[in-house]
Amino acid sequence: MRVLVLNAGSSSLKYQVIHLDDGGERVEVKGTVERIGSPGGAADHRDAVREALERAGSVDAVGHRVVHGGEKYRDAVRIDAEVERMIEECCALAPLHNPPNLACYRAARDLLGGAPHVAVFDTAFFQSLEPHVFLYGLPLEYYERDHIRRYGFHGTSHRYVSARAAQLLGKPPEQCRLITCHLGNGCSICAVRGGRAVDVSLGFTPIEGLIMGTRCGDIDPGVVFHLMRAKGMSLDEVEDLFIRRSGLLGLSGRSNDMRDLVEAAASGNERARLAIDVFCYRAKKYIGAYWAVLGGADAVVFTGGIGENRAGIRRQILDGLEHLGRFETLVVPTHEELLIARDTARVLNGTETR
Amino acid sequence: MRVLVLNAGSSSLKYQVIHLDDGGERVEVKGTVERIGSPGGAADHRDAVREALERAGSVDAVGHRVVHGGEKYRDAVRIDAEVERMIEECCALAPLHNPPNLACYRAARDLLGGAPHVAVFDTAFFQSLEPHVFLYGLPLEYYERDHIRRYGFHGTSHRYVSARAAQLLGKPPEQCRLITCHLGNGCSICAVRGGRAVDVSLGFTPIEGLIMGTRCGDIDPGVVFHLMRAKGMSLDEVEDLFIRRSGLLGLSGRSNDMRDLVEAAASGNERARLAIDVFCYRAKKYIGAYWAVLGGADAVVFTGGIGENRAGIRRQILDGLEHLGRFETLVVPTHEELLIARDTARVLNGTETR
Repeated sequence: MRVLVLNAGSSSLKYQVIHLDDGGERVEVKGTVERIGSPGGAADHRDAVREALERAGSVDAVGHRVVHGGEKYRDAVRIDAEVERMIEECCALAPLHNPPNLACYRAARDLLGGAPHVAVFDTAFFQSLEPHVFLYGLPLEYYERDHIRRYGFHGTSHRYVSARAAQLLGKPPEQCRLITCHLGNGCSICAVRGGRAVDVSLGFTPIEGLIMGTRCGDIDPGVVFHLMRAKGMSLDEVEDLFIRRSGLLGLSGRSNDMRDLVEAAASGNERARLAIDVFCYRAKKYIGAYWAVLGGADAVVFTGGIGENRAGIRRQILDGLEHLGRFETLVVPTHEELLIARDTARVLNGTETR
Repeated sequence: MRVLVLNAGSSSLKYQVIHLDDGGERVEVKGTVERIGSPGGAADHRDAVREALERAGSVDAVGHRVVHGGEKYRDAVRIDAEVERMIEECCALAPLHNPPNLACYRAARDLLGGAPHVAVFDTAFFQSLEPHVFLYGLPLEYYERDHIRRYGFHGTSHRYVSARAAQLLGKPPEQCRLITCHLGNGCSICAVRGGRAVDVSLGFTPIEGLIMGTRCGDIDPGVVFHLMRAKGMSLDEVEDLFIRRSGLLGLSGRSNDMRDLVEAAASGNERARLAIDVFCYRAKKYIGAYWAVLGGADAVVFTGGIGENRAGIRRQILDGLEHLGRFETLVVPTHEELLIARDTARVLNGTETR
């Protein structure tokens, strides 16, 4: 089966064609449409999908990464009118992410004729979280009525690397306790027990948790009140600050790219050093917290651009954690597209392809 | 020396007269003025101080609990015009707390004639936090220009119980690593190494960290944006929600008092059970995080109304943490007033009284 995998952001579309059969799995086409809606780029997501389809050639199915599946979807699902409506409903919870996912689905459906479409949700892996884990300390009606809870994101990545880590450890996933660290431009840490997510650092939105490239991560909500009241900032300004001007970029005053910061810190730049120190310290605290929650872990697993490629950052995060007990450290390159293709085939065939 | 200790809230004033001399320390007078500014209560904080002074009798000095000392004060300090000005400046950072502290100081100064006054800051104990610990993931100028950082509160309590815990362990404070849990109506957990605070769960304001009686604790800042934008709530409404209607009260829909919740949960009330579960789970995560930061701990120390009196809550928090390693569990009744009296005597005499 040739599966086209679409992963849309607000101004980009990444796509891969993955061939899955009994003989194996291989990526046959891979590309990105950048600057959607900007001069010189694709006009809109429909235009971007058209470009991807032209390069893809003939495909049997399309797997869509959809960021937010709310509480409805615990697994991938074939898209029909009902699923489409739910993805649209979840736009209220993920106003930056679900609309482009939806636009790409609709474009691909219209342009491709009868091929089946499958949605693979970034939030689905975290539907196993228990209420005492996913609830915030708000009146319960804010969950029941307004759906405010920890949803978590990067689920496909955490699911992929946790399954792969179990393979590498030579143990069935059911017997593994893992702490998976997805450290890319977005960052999250996840506690996995028996193949199921137990807790995750991203929350109601992708702002919470670790320091990220440009996102602030955990912060006292009183800071929002102070910035708006005492500093006269608007809601939009504070949100822009927290999402686009904070994190590694804000602390370093220099770059949201860890490679630049490691280089600058090595040349004596103190703010770059500080940004790295905050980043690693926060990650260390999450690993400790999840160690406590899991009652120990077989391995701490790193993935994502930083997690896979920056040994110095991994070392700084793990420094001093020996005393927690014995655990393996694994580096597992993530491959979300492959898992989306597998999920697509599985949902359509009713079988595992792996 | 007879020291009057004043601990003012927005609508109450707690006071104690503590006698300190070579023969020991004893509380000679103890009282509370409630409902300041309400019908039937004291008219204002000056009125409340007058009442406290009448009951106190003759005193040699006054020790004031002051919530926010900014970054200026790492220790208690005798109040002069400069200190008074700094306490006033910090009102911008603690608009609910510093103004009553200041009003009580001014009233006591005017009413008492020449007695010396000492300010003991709730934030001072946390001035030992390192930058990578106290910084949020915001652009650095929000710290340098706007003083936004983790300050921490309950410092006098954490300092008192950590010193006492070291005594109970029979070790010099310099050799102890402790995780102190102040669980009262407000709640915080603190990592202490060598008698100095290393990290603390309360942040820029007393909202962050653990679930508290009516405060929400850690929450994705994106929830603020969502409530204001999608739900049309005002800034004041969200702040009121997070500070006065959340936490144990909001989750349980019943009470902010852990005693009520334990009773209700025992009778099968599911929301009370849930509120307790969220409370304990969050505490467990902080203990794990600080265990990682400290590289282990000699003891986990409980204090505050819940920490001292609710063995079942302590057990639920500690359940499953055996695997972290060997540690003692201590219950140490806090006595902030005693430490404020000692600090007052020490600052005025230039000597330790203990």
